[in-house]
Amino acid sequence: MKEDCIFCKIIKGEIPSYKIYEDENVFAFLDIANDYYGHTLVIPKKHCENVLDCDNETLNYVINAVKKISKHYAQKCGFQGVNILNACGKAGEQSVFHLHFHIIPRKENDGNHIWPTHESLNNDLGDIASKLKL
Amino acid sequence: MKEDCIFCKIIKGEIPSYKIYEDENVFAFLDIANDYYGHTLVIPKKHCENVLDCDNETLNYVINAVKKISKHYAQKCGFQGVNILNACGKAGEQSVFHLHFHIIPRKENDGNHIWPTHESLNNDLGDIASKLKL
Repeated sequence: MKEDCIFCKIIKGEIPSYKIYEDENVFAFLDIANDYYGHTLVIPKKHCENVLDCDNETLNYVINAVKKISKHYAQKCGFQGVNILNACGKAGEQSVFHLHFHIIPRKENDGNHIWPTHESLNNDLGDIASKLKL
Repeated sequence: MKEDCIFCKIIKGEIPSYKIYEDENVFAFLDIANDYYGHTLVIPKKHCENVLDCDNETLNYVINAVKKISKHYAQKCGFQGVNILNACGKAGEQSVFHLHFHIIPRKENDGNHIWPTHESLNNDLGDIASKLKL
């Protein structure tokens, strides 16, 4: 837990939230942005900033809960798919610095376009791969 | 492996790709869309369609590789963040039905807006939470 972290306060119940799911390691609640129906945030109870500083065990708890909730939405709540999104770092448009994965439940013909689109670049993919490969 | 799956063919080397990373369980390569610099796909070698039918062990291999590659991009390749994205189901804008997580490396002031935006809805979040909670 981190003293000044809004998500740690939500986990502790010091700030109210619209809870969707909770277990020993994970907490999930509706995004207060209220921008997409059922927009859900899944966070670890153990504070970490984002995927870069998160230990694998904690990350696995979170992604397994993301799957569990996504299956629930698809099998029990009338959705046919989801988008799973994460913003890491200020450069990655992260705004709250407690790791969170977004789930946006989707229905066919819901009119939403979650997927980012950008025109094709004229980059040499072989050159990029040689620079980025591990 | 699934016979008619394009990503299974990439793993087997039957279709060429711009490889970024490979280990026993995971393969990563550049998205041929060439839409964002360094846009990377991370896939399990074991075929599954998406997060809904993927066993937890396989999902953990994939997300741990996503983290490993994201750290490499942030620590060694001059990026300051990433976006991690997944499309699940046709309704979720999934196009290739072999589980894949996208990594889009980000730099501050890169001019990209990966984050989906939508005006705030007039939904009752308490009502939605009561319908969606597990």
